Formats: sequence, C-alpha cells, structure tokens
Amino acid sequence: MARPVPHALADYPHRRDITTRWMDNDAYGHVNNVVYYSYFDTVVNDWLIRRGLLDVERGALIGLVVETGCHYFEPLTYPETVTAALRVAHVGNSSVRYEVGLFGEGRDRAAAQGHFVHVYVDRDTRRPAPLPAPWREALAALRVPGVSP
Amino acid sequence: MARPVPHALADYPHRRDITTRWMDNDAYGHVNNVVYYSYFDTVVNDWLIRRGLLDVERGALIGLVVETGCHYFEPLTYPETVTAALRVAHVGNSSVRYEVGLFGEGRDRAAAQGHFVHVYVDRDTRRPAPLPAPWREALAALRVPGVSP
Amino acid sequence: MARPVPHALADYPHRRDITTRWMDNDAYGHVNNVVYYSYFDTVVNDWLIRRGLLDVERGALIGLVVETGCHYFEPLTYPETVTAALRVAHVGNSSVRYEVGLFGEGRDRAAAQGHFVHVYVDRDTRRPAPLPAPWREALAALRVPGVSP
Amino acid sequence: MARPVPHALADYPHRRDITTRWMDNDAYGHVNNVVYYSYFDTVVNDWLIRRGLLDVERGALIGLVVETGCHYFEPLTYPETVTAALRVAHVGNSSVRYEVGLFGEGRDRAAAQGHFVHVYVDRDTRRPAPLPAPWREALAALRVPGVSP
Repeated sequence: MARPVPHALADYPHRRDITTRWMDNDAYGHVNNVVYYSYFDTVVNDWLIRRGLLDVERGALIGLVVETGCHYFEPLTYPETVTAALRVAHVGNSSVRYEVGLFGEGRDRAAAQGHFVHVYVDRDTRRPAPLPAPWREALAALRVPGVSP
Repeated sequence: MARPVPHALADYPHRRDITTRWMDNDAYGHVNNVVYYSYFDTVVNDWLIRRGLLDVERGALIGLVVETGCHYFEPLTYPETVTAALRVAHVGNSSVRYEVGLFGEGRDRAAAQGHFVHVYVDRDTRRPAPLPAPWREALAALRVPGVSP
Repeated sequence: MARPVPHALADYPHRRDITTRWMDNDAYGHVNNVVYYSYFDTVVNDWLIRRGLLDVERGALIGLVVETGCHYFEPLTYPETVTAALRVAHVGNSSVRYEVGLFGEGRDRAAAQGHFVHVYVDRDTRRPAPLPAPWREALAALRVPGVSP
Repeated sequence: MARPVPHALADYPHRRDITTRWMDNDAYGHVNNVVYYSYFDTVVNDWLIRRGLLDVERGALIGLVVETGCHYFEPLTYPETVTAALRVAHVGNSSVRYEVGLFGEGRDRAAAQGHFVHVYVDRDTRRPAPLPAPWREALAALRVPGVSP
C-alpha cells in the first residue's frame, strides 16, 4: 500500500472550480469520500461537453466508465470551493485514461488525486468506437508527457 | 394546486453561484428534483457560515430543518452554473423561514423556487433556543418586506 | 407555520423498504433533509415501474415533478432501514398528487411526511398528456378517501 | 489497463442488500459510477456498526478513507436491489483493506468490484491508532485467504 506523492496544480493543464455543498459533508464534518468521484465525473464531462465533443442527448458516442480510483491526502470541507484539475495520461483506440487532482481553496497541493477511465461506445450498439480525429486533437492538449506510457 | 408565478432575481437580496454536477442529471437528462434541495441547503448554510453565525463543529446553535417545499417551473441542466438566490420571509423566536429561488445560467426568471424552515436548537439539549442579537441583525438584511407577515 | 400531525403507517396503502447509506448522514449525524426527497422519488417511481406503468426508456409518458414538500418530525439515521409509505391524494387529468410518509425502522409514527406532484407529459412534445385507463385503475388502489378533494 | 475477472458471490463471506434509488440513474439510464462507491461505504460501515466496533458519535476510533478504486463490468439499474459483498484483503497495524463486489439482482457475477482502505485514527488526535483486539477478531472472519498477502 505505497502512497503516491500529492500533485501540484501545475501538474495539470486544465482546471475547473466546483462548489461544495452542505450535504457533501459526512458525519465527521468533511466531504465524504464518495463525493470526490462526483468532482472527477464533473470535470471530465464538463470539459468534453464545453469543447463540443460530447453531446449527451444526441451524440454518436457515449462514455462508459470502466475504472476509477482515488488516493485521499487531506480533507475537503464545505463551504470551500474545490479546484478540479484535469490531464490525460493515455489515449487508446476507444478509451481515455484521465487523471484528476482535487485542490482545496487556495491550495497548491492536491487534497486527493486519482484516475477515471472512459471507454467510448456507439450510442446504439454500445460497442467500443474508435475516437474521431477532433477528439484526438482536443485530448492531445490535455496530454501530459511522461505521466504514463 | 394553484401554481405560483416564477420570481425574478431582483426579488432576492443575496445570491450564490452553485456549479451543477454530471450526476445531478437524472434519466431524463435534467437536474433531478431532489438535487434542487441540495442547492437550498447550500445557499442557506453558506450564508450562515460565511457571516460567522453558524459554526458547524463548535457553535452553540444547530439548525434543524423542519419544513421544506419547492415549485419547479423549468429544467436545470448540467453543466450550467445555477444561481441560488436567498431571502428571509419570517423570523420567529427560534426559527427562520428562508425562501430560495434557483436561476439557470444567465436567466432572470426562476427555474424553481421554494422555502426552507430552520429551527435553531441548543447543540447539547437539542431544545429550541432564542436567536441571538447578531443573528437577528444579519437576518434583517435578507428580510424582504411584504413577502410574508 | 402550523405543524401537521405525524401520520401512522396504516394511513398509507403501499410500503417499500429503503436502505439508508453512510453518506446520507450529514455533519450532525442524521440523514440530511435533502435525502428524504430521494426516498419520495424512489417509492413513487418504483411503484410506477413495477406495475408496468412507467417505462423510463421507451414509455409514451414521462413524469415531470412540478411540486414537492416535506415536514420533518424526527431524525432518521444510517444504518437503519426506512419504510417509505405511499398514497394518492389527488388524480387530475394529467397530474397526480402523491403523499409519502417516511418511517424509521420498527416505527409506526412518521419521521417525516410530504407530497410529490407529477405531471405526466408526452415523451416527445413534453406537453401534458391525459392519464391512460390502466394508470387510473392502478392509481385508484392507492387513493385514500378523505385526504384531499 | 489489464481488466480483472469479475468475482462470484461465493468469493465474499459477507453480503448486504442495498436498494437503488431513482436518482442513482444518470443521463444514460444506469446507476452512475460515483454511486457505486456509496454502496462500498455503506456495506463497510454497516458491518462495523452492527458488530459494535464503530460508534460514529462516541467511539475512540474513526475510520478515514485513504484509498478507493473500482472496476465496472456491467450496468446496475434502478429499481433493482443490489447485493454488496464484503471481504477483507489485508489487516495492517491501523489500516484495513476491504474488497467489495456489487451484484445485480439475482446475479452471481459481479457488476463491479473494488477496494476501500480505511485507516483508523484516534477521534481527538486524528493520529493512526492500533486496531484493538475485538476489531482484529471480527475482521478475521471476513479475511479471505489468498486474495492478498
């Protein structure tokens, strides 16, 4: 159970602020571990939608989540605003491994970091579909050299 | 089942932006009705905490929710940012009736509006406690004349 | 702000057990007020789906929530199992007013009770649609005389 | 990105049914990936609380989540009831690595499986505390030989 080193904000090319909610806090007064994944989900899909890649209602591709994971270093607490930072570690034929760092308000050291693997499938057949060129180009801008082969 | 008229942003003295999350959307592709109440909860407690009134871990007073309600007019949809607008309709001896309007991004007409009634109790006895003077003064700034006796 | 009297289990013709979750508890160690509405949502849709009325993916009708409300009397706490009890207070041309009582494990007095109003709309036009006969027949079994005109 | 083989129910010594909720479903009509972790959280804490080990309000020990992860194989869908199955893969001085399998209603092949690592800390100092003997004895019953060193 080796622990990774918390990332810095500069390790990620894209950022998005996410407001915490009262109900994010659990019985110990900190954001519940499950909620961190809702921030992962939000920063990835937000990036895809705002770049015009993912169209939830009509797009040809749907992103299915096949694997996620998170290491937790420090608590996050409502009502602070969390910065979700995003990078791409690997682009496969029809899958993308995203990496997300979550930073407390005004902090440069990740409170938590993890990964989120999407397989893109055809909306109708639900079979993996090759990533179109515009997706590859956009994803290249989030690619951080050296984080993974 | 008479339907109220949707409020305008100007009907509320306080506002706070809340980022929607991917998982807020339900099977019909819009923010689920339950999630609206998490925005209510968030704007009320955020206002109380940032003004130094509510101290979740150590404060003498705890807010218990005794009644909530909401009318829904139009869908909200991830990834838009929602503006939660807040006013106070009634201040009792130990209770406050807050009213909240939720506005879609760039909209001036409420997508939904409702109420949220807190009774403030002593942390230890959990018995209703009279609202201290600093609370009454702060709440007065959110009071909108005429919305309720 | 008159407080209603908590209902008994016998006031409702239908019941469904719902398991609470660790993250339902908020910073005060009780199920958060927002989560109660997820129980409302769950018992209503579960009843509609299991009776073959609502087909989320393909059905002609979609239920839009236009109004909800809840009175809270006593805390619910993870890990207890909650009983959600359901009745119908009013059936309109294309709308139904459901009433829900939530009961703690082994309790006969509602911890909370409220209402949930669905308007049924055509999936494509999203315009209100008259309730089909099989819906009316099924809903009649949940109708409790006297609870509302 | 090698994919593990889905587990069988018999691979886990403990099981708990968890009811899905309407709002668990996301815009694609299946339980959202984040929600799976709320099932993990629920089966672990439920087991600890019902055995009298964890006392959220007054116990000397608090469980902090330091790492979680999940592989997703098949969708889960409201309103089915999910079986969360639990085993212990590793017991350290003050930490436990739990493994959880999630099974759709009537299914013997995991829809998803993952891990959940708790570090137990002193409530006041928040420093790791050695696991007491009653904890070690109870956890031994969930230990599955061979799943991890």
